[in-house]
Amino acid sequence: MGLTIGVDIGGTKIAAGVVDEEGSILETCKVPTPPTPEGVIDAIADAVRTVSASHPAEAVGIGAAGYVDNKRATVLFAPNINWRHEALKDKVEQRVGLPVVVENDANAAAWGEYRFGAGQGHDDVVCITLGTGLGGGIIIGGRLHRGRFGVAGEFGHIRVVPDGLLCGCGSQGCWEQYASGRALVRYARQRAAATPENAEVLLGLGDGTPETIEGKHISEAARAGDPVAVDSFRELARWAGAGLADLASLFDPSAFIVGGGVSDEGDLVLDPIRKSFRRWLVGNQWRPHAQVLAAQLGGEAGLVGAADLARQG
Amino acid sequence: MGLTIGVDIGGTKIAAGVVDEEGSILETCKVPTPPTPEGVIDAIADAVRTVSASHPAEAVGIGAAGYVDNKRATVLFAPNINWRHEALKDKVEQRVGLPVVVENDANAAAWGEYRFGAGQGHDDVVCITLGTGLGGGIIIGGRLHRGRFGVAGEFGHIRVVPDGLLCGCGSQGCWEQYASGRALVRYARQRAAATPENAEVLLGLGDGTPETIEGKHISEAARAGDPVAVDSFRELARWAGAGLADLASLFDPSAFIVGGGVSDEGDLVLDPIRKSFRRWLVGNQWRPHAQVLAAQLGGEAGLVGAADLARQG
Amino acid sequence: MGLTIGVDIGGTKIAAGVVDEEGSILETCKVPTPPTPEGVIDAIADAVRTVSASHPAEAVGIGAAGYVDNKRATVLFAPNINWRHEALKDKVEQRVGLPVVVENDANAAAWGEYRFGAGQGHDDVVCITLGTGLGGGIIIGGRLHRGRFGVAGEFGHIRVVPDGLLCGCGSQGCWEQYASGRALVRYARQRAAATPENAEVLLGLGDGTPETIEGKHISEAARAGDPVAVDSFRELARWAGAGLADLASLFDPSAFIVGGGVSDEGDLVLDPIRKSFRRWLVGNQWRPHAQVLAAQLGGEAGLVGAADLARQG
Amino acid sequence: MGLTIGVDIGGTKIAAGVVDEEGSILETCKVPTPPTPEGVIDAIADAVRTVSASHPAEAVGIGAAGYVDNKRATVLFAPNINWRHEALKDKVEQRVGLPVVVENDANAAAWGEYRFGAGQGHDDVVCITLGTGLGGGIIIGGRLHRGRFGVAGEFGHIRVVPDGLLCGCGSQGCWEQYASGRALVRYARQRAAATPENAEVLLGLGDGTPETIEGKHISEAARAGDPVAVDSFRELARWAGAGLADLASLFDPSAFIVGGGVSDEGDLVLDPIRKSFRRWLVGNQWRPHAQVLAAQLGGEAGLVGAADLARQG
Repeated sequence: MGLTIGVDIGGTKIAAGVVDEEGSILETCKVPTPPTPEGVIDAIADAVRTVSASHPAEAVGIGAAGYVDNKRATVLFAPNINWRHEALKDKVEQRVGLPVVVENDANAAAWGEYRFGAGQGHDDVVCITLGTGLGGGIIIGGRLHRGRFGVAGEFGHIRVVPDGLLCGCGSQGCWEQYASGRALVRYARQRAAATPENAEVLLGLGDGTPETIEGKHISEAARAGDPVAVDSFRELARWAGAGLADLASLFDPSAFIVGGGVSDEGDLVLDPIRKSFRRWLVGNQWRPHAQVLAAQLGGEAGLVGAADLARQG
Repeated sequence: MGLTIGVDIGGTKIAAGVVDEEGSILETCKVPTPPTPEGVIDAIADAVRTVSASHPAEAVGIGAAGYVDNKRATVLFAPNINWRHEALKDKVEQRVGLPVVVENDANAAAWGEYRFGAGQGHDDVVCITLGTGLGGGIIIGGRLHRGRFGVAGEFGHIRVVPDGLLCGCGSQGCWEQYASGRALVRYARQRAAATPENAEVLLGLGDGTPETIEGKHISEAARAGDPVAVDSFRELARWAGAGLADLASLFDPSAFIVGGGVSDEGDLVLDPIRKSFRRWLVGNQWRPHAQVLAAQLGGEAGLVGAADLARQG
Repeated sequence: MGLTIGVDIGGTKIAAGVVDEEGSILETCKVPTPPTPEGVIDAIADAVRTVSASHPAEAVGIGAAGYVDNKRATVLFAPNINWRHEALKDKVEQRVGLPVVVENDANAAAWGEYRFGAGQGHDDVVCITLGTGLGGGIIIGGRLHRGRFGVAGEFGHIRVVPDGLLCGCGSQGCWEQYASGRALVRYARQRAAATPENAEVLLGLGDGTPETIEGKHISEAARAGDPVAVDSFRELARWAGAGLADLASLFDPSAFIVGGGVSDEGDLVLDPIRKSFRRWLVGNQWRPHAQVLAAQLGGEAGLVGAADLARQG
Repeated sequence: MGLTIGVDIGGTKIAAGVVDEEGSILETCKVPTPPTPEGVIDAIADAVRTVSASHPAEAVGIGAAGYVDNKRATVLFAPNINWRHEALKDKVEQRVGLPVVVENDANAAAWGEYRFGAGQGHDDVVCITLGTGLGGGIIIGGRLHRGRFGVAGEFGHIRVVPDGLLCGCGSQGCWEQYASGRALVRYARQRAAATPENAEVLLGLGDGTPETIEGKHISEAARAGDPVAVDSFRELARWAGAGLADLASLFDPSAFIVGGGVSDEGDLVLDPIRKSFRRWLVGNQWRPHAQVLAAQLGGEAGLVGAADLARQG
């Protein structure tokens, strides 16, 4: 198969891109994310038609947040948004006239990294995506592990604190409440409120109140040595690394790949994650350690991965 | 290949058995577990020779507690006992003159259940073994998932309580401290000490003090309706079921199999585990549920599974 | 001093009452709670004037949610509402021309129970108020313990779960997130969503969806044996009792008094709290146990207590 | 009353001292702690006779670990040692012919600090003693708060982690498992085992293995900047400070005093405790903060305090 189209549905915009067999993006199109499910489907179709006009493609892969069924057709449930049994594949196929494959967005990103990014050369890889929330994808023996019902790899919702923070999924103590972009912001705001004298740089990047601290401020302040910003990354890393150690006990991959917006900070966040991973790894003196790698494809991993999954049919 | 021999190394005794292609045990031999590593190896060799005398076998599979390397030859690390890089395969092969395969004991038991027990007909199965500790085994696509370094499926040591109970592995809050036979006894003793008037049956089965309560007492008392015994099973199930819900988020199997001594109690323990599983399953109204099945092979699952793995080479 | 007036500021209404030296209420007046701080003060003044018209009183005691300073004049901080350094005493005195004493509402309720309710005959009493949130009051040696800065007894905000639920106070894992009327409703909704077949009575009292479950439904359903309702009370009691055990380690009172709306259910909630208290009490076999008593004054404890504190000057 | 004798019963030795009205120790005597309860009582009597020979004293105060009854006569229960209803007062009085007062050892130390150490000038003080375990003492209105049954101030056994570490008292998650000298050593050993390259100084002070790390090594290494040692103190401070914040919500004292062997390190440990205290203090921007002070009397606080309590009768 030649060219395929990958679609990434984000909270604020939808991106479609034509991708070739080497994972290169030939053309992209971004549109704002409409507020309604039907609007989203129309927007996907529009974006697909736009990019396929100049680059005829043979199939479409869509990365969508939530639990996708094992026919890769329907979003069963999205923990943080309001999709319940949404028949995405059929609706988009009707509009664009191409075969469509729907995949969980973090699975698509994992596949992208495995095929064309940090995971090349590994057969068993576990990816975590630290974006607003926390997503996961699993490659076992060179294949995407989707599970019996299509919903494997939902790392964000394993329970890491009994009776812990409420989660959008209805449960409590989910990992993504402690290791995600949203968690990072919470850490920074709480600490800046309690000890503002240790957050002078950080507070100065907003309007001076903890409530206006955002993710980009924390990165910038951490690089400038702001104690609260550094400590917030450390707290994130504590939870991320401890969770990776658990995943090593479960999956035993040769490498972990850490992606998502939070990972854009590189070693600022990767190094403390590696340290925490090693600290919590059971029997760490007696066993080989998986590598903890930074993702390489940035925000395009999902789009590229979805396109490649569509190619593989 | 015809007959093979499975070996199960337990804390108090070592069992060897000749197993045929249907998973039937033709002959067994049990010997006490010696206190030293070398003694254990001699005892294994003796037991293998005994059973192979009348039933010539072609290979030996050994199920051993701990992390076994990906060559299925060496026990790297045993969380609760003192084996570190123990070259079990070579040493036993030298003594018995047959090819030997070493496997984690819970993996072997999982394989036994998959091939000849509760897992028949399923392709993706996750097994937990609630014995003294908690072991795990994973079947994906009809194959035992051993991981890149051979140490996947170490469920007992994922962290379910931050800063929780100390574990023999050196970590804290490991699942097996909350869901295992040992945990069940702790629950019962604590509750009987605090509210002896609710543990009359249970205390009557020992010498009347909480310290003498053992696992078999709890089962018997629970069947007689003893409130503390019933509540202890409920607490065990609370942790076991919540953990299975996490495993569903990670692996998404079609079935879970619950084995080990604790599962011998059948629905007394399985029903509350199923209830807790369902309570904690993320998106439980919107997705298919994996079955939670009782193991069928009892204490012989490990021996049968190890023999079958040896057959497969 | 003769008659005094007690004022209780609730979320929906403000009550003022004339109280005599025996703690009897001679006349009351209730007005809706205005939405602004100034409106609240005007409403208090109106209510006080109304009841004092026919019963001339000599002083006013106000029970207010939040941290009240040690001059009993200013609300420093209210964890769940937006009062910061509100000079309540001065503002009300200017309007009504009587001496005013401001007291934390749970302290006032504790004092009411100590003087005229369940605490009579005890010198060292600790009260918890399980209303929407969780408040506390401490009597030591027959005196209300207010602390050096006036803010002792803020039980609701001690941390019982590290990294636990977010609280209105800005912290995480506060006791009132686990033991309060609000927590009870959360328990019931979560359980009813997960296992609706065990919540048939409970769901039938609302519109059939978990989101419409309210506190009164849980009480009614629990009395009818609805499993989810019973279990929700049990969970509340688990946290309430464990916290009382901690308070026994700290204060060692002769009695605990449990008040607030949740305690209106009597032994339905008191018995499991007593059981949980005993289970968690350190050294429970070797020490005298404090009694755990139901409050006797119901919703009027705060008003009566505030009036009595005003009398004592 | 003139001179009195204070006795401090430690795990390894018993100290008796003659103390004057200013809290000065005129003479001391130390003997090894015998292994049996009766032996301990004989040793106390011997030490008392020795010091009283040259300094005739009028009464004896004994600081003993555990729950002491409200007659200050009997040790009801010692969480970590094997005393149950031990009639210490009577037995020592019979042997030495002087009136004896028994007090919880941490209460005695708190009293010593209040009267002659860091607590002078404060009326409401809460002391924590970070020794091997964690003890507490409460001064309210210039009086030692002993509680209705004599067992108030047992801070070490409030639950700070649900389902947390097992404690010698039979409960789980007790504060002293996370904030005490024993906890500090556990933190250091776990971290040194996981990341030995960050513990070079620390490991070099023992025989190079984590198991030989002791408290004094951690202090020395922390002063030399050893990362694991510094991080271990930080972890201790995290738990100590969070607990003090809870105590502020409960007691609202004007000052906390931190004593015990761990506090000998001064600001090395006090500064991070203060920081953590402030971070966790509810409403910390809106209320006065209690001071967090280092104890001043060192290891003699208990002896001096016990002697002074005996003087007061």
